[in-house]
Amino acid sequence: MRDAMEDRTELVVCTTCRLPGAPPDAPGDGARLSAALAARGIPHRRQECLSACTRGCAVVFRGPGRWTYVQGALDPDRHLPDLLEMIRAYAQAPDGVVPWRQRPEVIRKNTIARIPPMEP
Amino acid sequence: MRDAMEDRTELVVCTTCRLPGAPPDAPGDGARLSAALAARGIPHRRQECLSACTRGCAVVFRGPGRWTYVQGALDPDRHLPDLLEMIRAYAQAPDGVVPWRQRPEVIRKNTIARIPPMEP
Repeated sequence: MRDAMEDRTELVVCTTCRLPGAPPDAPGDGARLSAALAARGIPHRRQECLSACTRGCAVVFRGPGRWTYVQGALDPDRHLPDLLEMIRAYAQAPDGVVPWRQRPEVIRKNTIARIPPMEP
Repeated sequence: MRDAMEDRTELVVCTTCRLPGAPPDAPGDGARLSAALAARGIPHRRQECLSACTRGCAVVFRGPGRWTYVQGALDPDRHLPDLLEMIRAYAQAPDGVVPWRQRPEVIRKNTIARIPPMEP
């Protein structure tokens, strides 16, 4: 996995996110998502709050020269395979734009924002 | 204004955004927002669709070494002064984090996402 995730891409995971309706005393869903990725050796950056709280769990895909994608609604109990698939696909897309059909459904349906690369 | 908007900051404006409930045959609100900024000589980058369509009009504040903010609900007929104020404040915040009290209300209430700066 580390080979596929090229150095110039970065996954940012919100560690304070909770899924809509999550009980307030339950372990944080974003923190669980980060732990699940770490357990699989998937490099990512942990961030407290991406200000996308109503659409958690949220993550960001980004890298120099690439489109940035803010994604939400990722349930660590259901969507880990989708997230891993998207990490791989994003790393393989030179401009960060993963072809629509290659995006897992949870990604297609829950793009919170996309941001064009900075001009060189 | 150009002096205040330092070179290393960039405002990206979605030109395809429409305000919620806007009639489909009306001129696009995002395009109008861009035109209003251009008429005042405010530099910005025009982008077709930031994938924040349900929360238009959307813009992005960003710059190297700064937090990126995706903001929504900007009405070109009501919020231009707020946007100009935020452009100025963002340019003056070295890390891109404008103190809460300095953020216009439409900015405080409609942050769609915030993204930390890339690590150096």
